[in-house]
Amino acid sequence: MTQARRGRFVTLEGGEGAGKSTQIRRLAARLAERGVAVVATREPGGSPRAEEIRAVILSGSARRLGPLAEALLFAAARADHLDVTIRPALARGAWVVCDRFFDSTRAYQGARGGVDASVLAALDRIVVGETRPDLTLVLDLPAELGLARAHARRGAAEPVDRFEAEDLAFHEALRRDFLAIAAAEPARCVVVDASGGEDEVAEAVWRAVESRLLAGETA
Amino acid sequence: MTQARRGRFVTLEGGEGAGKSTQIRRLAARLAERGVAVVATREPGGSPRAEEIRAVILSGSARRLGPLAEALLFAAARADHLDVTIRPALARGAWVVCDRFFDSTRAYQGARGGVDASVLAALDRIVVGETRPDLTLVLDLPAELGLARAHARRGAAEPVDRFEAEDLAFHEALRRDFLAIAAAEPARCVVVDASGGEDEVAEAVWRAVESRLLAGETA
Repeated sequence: MTQARRGRFVTLEGGEGAGKSTQIRRLAARLAERGVAVVATREPGGSPRAEEIRAVILSGSARRLGPLAEALLFAAARADHLDVTIRPALARGAWVVCDRFFDSTRAYQGARGGVDASVLAALDRIVVGETRPDLTLVLDLPAELGLARAHARRGAAEPVDRFEAEDLAFHEALRRDFLAIAAAEPARCVVVDASGGEDEVAEAVWRAVESRLLAGETA
Repeated sequence: MTQARRGRFVTLEGGEGAGKSTQIRRLAARLAERGVAVVATREPGGSPRAEEIRAVILSGSARRLGPLAEALLFAAARADHLDVTIRPALARGAWVVCDRFFDSTRAYQGARGGVDASVLAALDRIVVGETRPDLTLVLDLPAELGLARAHARRGAAEPVDRFEAEDLAFHEALRRDFLAIAAAEPARCVVVDASGGEDEVAEAVWRAVESRLLAGETA
């Protein structure tokens, strides 16, 4: 029994339509089958007050908010999410599987928005501190395919959110940003090919989790 | 003519019922009489998007948001306020007179909330940068008198906001926090006795502005 042991913190990252929320559900279910207590969550949001901030961030009215103010809003939501949801779960030994985390801020507000990496690193020191992900899975696929999937999932009648509404060149650049993040931190990040079918991607996700976090552990 | 010269940035600080908004109006009017272009503004808020964040901060639902997340929300609102309102005004030579600024974050979230001063200093470097106030007027009065004035102004029927709802000991501590801030930065801060009548306080405010910012200037 290893009840007092801190849980593992896994984040999924990637552009629109990469299948993050689907894969979070499948990963959480597979971990649960194995007897692991799992909390599946998302950013921005993941706690009641962070979800309120999410509504401000994703609303049209925040569209012209500068990337620095936006990064600070994400940081505020993240601070609450960490305090209320993530740290208590890890402390009781549960795994936390999170749809987007600080790498999305680095890609969207940093590389795309122009907020300096040193500013985002300072915010991470303030907000995230020691609670860095043990494993980050970057779901990678061509931007065009991701946008087509996001569009099909949503249905043409629903409104797109503000990030999804950006053009293809933006989403291609974002894909490169996530790959650059993964390349810079290979000990934390694994790139998963997300262009295949749902089952195939789920298998690749599971292999990464097994090899990075479960190998050698007593089940 | 000194049209290209950067305007001056004046902030008013102090607890509830100190008369900050009244004194902002009077100071702005007196500067305008003297031919100075003035922008009167407030925090949190002061730009359309920062006002939206203000609504989240002051709502009851944010009541249990931790002081760090709260400080980050203030920082997000401040970043937008600076970009949209304060810096453009100063750049065109106008004076900016602002009801609360970073000293309120230091007092409420820092000294009262327990957010480390080094964290708030890091946020100030990120968000405020060079745009520090030229003069900060700390309107000082006994907490009991301030709360009684705030109560009388509002009328018993209106709801109190979340900071005003704290107890007397909190507001007395807050008064000491603002005095400590002023004592630590005497070159920027002037403590103004705000326990007197509105005219008397307005005169004291004006004397501070004259001696610190207008002395020696061509009118």
